[in-house]
Amino acid sequence: MIPSILLRSLVHSKSCRSSAVVTRLQHSWNYEDNGSQGSRYPRHHAILAGVVGAGAGIALWLKYHLTAEAASSLLVADKEVAEYGAYKDGMPEYTLEDVAKHDTVDKRVWVAYRHGVYDITDFINEHPGGDKILMGAGGSVEPFWALYAVHKNPHVLKIFENYRIGNLAAQDVGAMVKDMSDPYGNEPRRHVTLKPASQKPFNAETPLAFLAENLITPNELFYVRNHLPVPEVDAKTYELEIVDETLDKEKMIKLSDIKKYPKHTITATIQCAGNRRSEMMKVKPVKGLSWGQAAIGNATWSGARLCDVLKDMGVTLENTTALHVQFEGLDTDPASMPYGSSIQIEKALDPQGDVILAYEMNGEPIPRDHGFPVRVVVPGVVGARNVKWLGKIVISEKESDAHWQQNDYKGFAPNIDWDTVDFTKSPAIQELPVISAICVPEEGETLKVVDGKVSLKGYAWSGGGRKIIRVDVSTDGGKSWQESDTLVSDTARHPRAWGWSLWEAEVPVSEGISETRLCVKAVDSQYNTQPENFENIWNLRGVINNAYHRVNVKLTR
Amino acid sequence: MIPSILLRSLVHSKSCRSSAVVTRLQHSWNYEDNGSQGSRYPRHHAILAGVVGAGAGIALWLKYHLTAEAASSLLVADKEVAEYGAYKDGMPEYTLEDVAKHDTVDKRVWVAYRHGVYDITDFINEHPGGDKILMGAGGSVEPFWALYAVHKNPHVLKIFENYRIGNLAAQDVGAMVKDMSDPYGNEPRRHVTLKPASQKPFNAETPLAFLAENLITPNELFYVRNHLPVPEVDAKTYELEIVDETLDKEKMIKLSDIKKYPKHTITATIQCAGNRRSEMMKVKPVKGLSWGQAAIGNATWSGARLCDVLKDMGVTLENTTALHVQFEGLDTDPASMPYGSSIQIEKALDPQGDVILAYEMNGEPIPRDHGFPVRVVVPGVVGARNVKWLGKIVISEKESDAHWQQNDYKGFAPNIDWDTVDFTKSPAIQELPVISAICVPEEGETLKVVDGKVSLKGYAWSGGGRKIIRVDVSTDGGKSWQESDTLVSDTARHPRAWGWSLWEAEVPVSEGISETRLCVKAVDSQYNTQPENFENIWNLRGVINNAYHRVNVKLTR
Repeated sequence: MIPSILLRSLVHSKSCRSSAVVTRLQHSWNYEDNGSQGSRYPRHHAILAGVVGAGAGIALWLKYHLTAEAASSLLVADKEVAEYGAYKDGMPEYTLEDVAKHDTVDKRVWVAYRHGVYDITDFINEHPGGDKILMGAGGSVEPFWALYAVHKNPHVLKIFENYRIGNLAAQDVGAMVKDMSDPYGNEPRRHVTLKPASQKPFNAETPLAFLAENLITPNELFYVRNHLPVPEVDAKTYELEIVDETLDKEKMIKLSDIKKYPKHTITATIQCAGNRRSEMMKVKPVKGLSWGQAAIGNATWSGARLCDVLKDMGVTLENTTALHVQFEGLDTDPASMPYGSSIQIEKALDPQGDVILAYEMNGEPIPRDHGFPVRVVVPGVVGARNVKWLGKIVISEKESDAHWQQNDYKGFAPNIDWDTVDFTKSPAIQELPVISAICVPEEGETLKVVDGKVSLKGYAWSGGGRKIIRVDVSTDGGKSWQESDTLVSDTARHPRAWGWSLWEAEVPVSEGISETRLCVKAVDSQYNTQPENFENIWNLRGVINNAYHRVNVKLTR
Repeated sequence: MIPSILLRSLVHSKSCRSSAVVTRLQHSWNYEDNGSQGSRYPRHHAILAGVVGAGAGIALWLKYHLTAEAASSLLVADKEVAEYGAYKDGMPEYTLEDVAKHDTVDKRVWVAYRHGVYDITDFINEHPGGDKILMGAGGSVEPFWALYAVHKNPHVLKIFENYRIGNLAAQDVGAMVKDMSDPYGNEPRRHVTLKPASQKPFNAETPLAFLAENLITPNELFYVRNHLPVPEVDAKTYELEIVDETLDKEKMIKLSDIKKYPKHTITATIQCAGNRRSEMMKVKPVKGLSWGQAAIGNATWSGARLCDVLKDMGVTLENTTALHVQFEGLDTDPASMPYGSSIQIEKALDPQGDVILAYEMNGEPIPRDHGFPVRVVVPGVVGARNVKWLGKIVISEKESDAHWQQNDYKGFAPNIDWDTVDFTKSPAIQELPVISAICVPEEGETLKVVDGKVSLKGYAWSGGGRKIIRVDVSTDGGKSWQESDTLVSDTARHPRAWGWSLWEAEVPVSEGISETRLCVKAVDSQYNTQPENFENIWNLRGVINNAYHRVNVKLTR
């Protein structure tokens, strides 16, 4: 089954505004659910609006050939779909390295899909989709098909299979070759389009334009934030240790034990505290990875609720003296010290807090880079507390004493520098404030003016379960504003709105100008707004970079 | 008993920084409680720092005479205290109108206390306290003694009684004379120092400087926001109607029934959505009362938890299909339509949401202006939902359809005007975002530079149970910032920190300048910050006025 949220997320082009968006204005604004959009089929020209990436050519083909009836077959076609991309006897074998060499039209454009290798150059020529069509070239096409779910359709795959030129080498379908002499010698394979901010530990963000394409960020394209080498954990022998320091109790539970609890699924955005740090750095240098605007992603997560697991140990908000729940990862530093972090007990034990011991991400086992086999998902709270490869939970009167809780991921006043900072004086970041970004266009791009207007799209999100209620955009550097045309999210409502919203806007630009500055700012359901500039929120660690996002573009008519 | 919070609130002068504030930095920053400050006695010179108002002269006297031992007697002296200010046979009788005429030293300064009238002119001369000492002149001295709790001490009252000149006329100790021909002819008597924004309905704010003096705002000085005439409700016959539309159930409960539920006490700030509107108005006119920075106050509220009362009707989060809880007041318009408003069911039924049917304000029956005999207190949520003179509760799938829910108290983008506004397109304001203000000095004042520094104080608050974690101040118009020296609040922690924080700062000013602009901005426990300016948050209704607060002052050395 394709999750209904993927279908729903397709309903955010302008052509569907009369159904999806107006529904939302009437109901969701009143803090109501916005109906059962999952059962609606988008019109086929809506499905395909704004398509980018390696699958774009196919999507453009669909624009002319797919009927609404065919689109509805998306819901039932999974079995048939599985036949395509299988190993085929007698075809030449290529490695991912071979595929990667073919990333331009001149060199021919190759992509991989499951066990198959495809040369889609002629397809691209037949249905040109602009420069962006090449962003996925030289890698696996699968994550892009997760972005544009319509591709997982027999009609599409049958055509696609015509471009098959070989089989993908067996070792490239699985994991990478291990090098045990390097602590980072056993990392999972990553998608070629991820944009690394550092290699060891591996940290990388999604190409920005992809983020605004689908409410759900595909696993392979989801930003990666690792602090240490990725541990290899065997799900069969995996055990989670749970200690209650206040009652001097402890127990071990297996993955199969965790799966016995009711399976709880939430849609939640996870964001690094340093997302958009590269913008703050322009004011004055800070320490930290130079993230763009894509150290953020939105996924569905399934697992056992932490409050259910802890209730079984007799821990409830009414009876515990604990103030914090600490988490330790199975990832360790050279001194064998694990990654660690903690959250407040109120969040951990509140059934409405939706903290889960997650074993699935977007309906699949959590990938290694994202915490296989179990990560804690603390929705609404900074990524650093969503501990991956979860090894230990400690119920305590104290916060985690790990570096990442005590001496990192905290904010300070703009006058505090590394000579004067006292990390005990600021609270550890937990819930993140409201933020937004323009994903399309990107800085420096040339934007086509159509009927006096330009088109923008992007995301907006707030932590703490606050829902985005409005996004304002400006095409004159912030002198004037108008509300976005569409604003789409899942149906969760404040104070459990853990997922982001995607927005699109067509905005007039002044006549005669050849360049301008675009801006975006968002408002959440607590009516919190973003700070205007980075100067007054500057902090030495470069966290909470939520000033207005500004993008300079050239205009063509 | 004097509430311990009053004592605790005295511990926020600089001289006590080493105890109260450092404690807070070490514990509360880690989201810990900050200890049992209620059991500490402030040093007597700390108690009296920064005293203003009609009681200032007495406070200054105490500065020289009160010992720490005497201060501790505050805890036990209530009985003895009650003897002072009683009716005295043979003394002349004066009305409050008579007292009001004596509001300057030239005319002699009179004040009222319970049944007594006092001429404190000679006391003021003996212990001058600056211009502010006269702010309470011509009115009742009692609210100021609530601000400076140390006054309710036999030592003080005995001296004070020496200045007794008469009895207050009986009708002035009780309510005002009724005029039944005027819908506003039966309003409660208000304290002379309240600054009216409108008379009918009565709306008035606290003199700004008083707000920063005590964590608890005295009842008589608490800002008043009425939408309609104040109803006269008899507590003996009062009944509250509760209707569950989803189950077609209803019942009536009396005040005595409400008092049978466990008494739940919270400290919560209530703020009007339009607080600080006068600042936004400078950008472009808006509709609404021209509030300064004091349409906000902090009080303790006691009553029954709404979730307990509704549980008795079988309504819990787990089993109800309702989405909203509507409230109606007993105040009505000329067409007999009541004031109305609603909140989300999640807030109403969450035991951690702390919504209460309050019958006490600061330990006393709720005053008429604040909702006698019962108002709902929805902590962290805009004042408009904290419905006073509560007459009816409706559990519903729909929001209240009252004007104040549907067509008022909503925010919009800056480009929306009264010709283009569509009130269905914005959600009703519920939780309010982070805000702060400088209370001392006020706009246009002359400030003394001592050792190159000036002293500021004020408040900071955020809705939704978010706690203030930092206040930054600037004495150069926002070019540079430093953190406040002290930041004091009650011990509640995120996400149930309903009360505000008071802050003080001594900040260097540039040499040689004779005027400057002071600024303040705050950060809450979700790391939300304030917007810099009003331009980009401007909205036609003038709500959510939480840009940095800026105060222009002259400097003297």
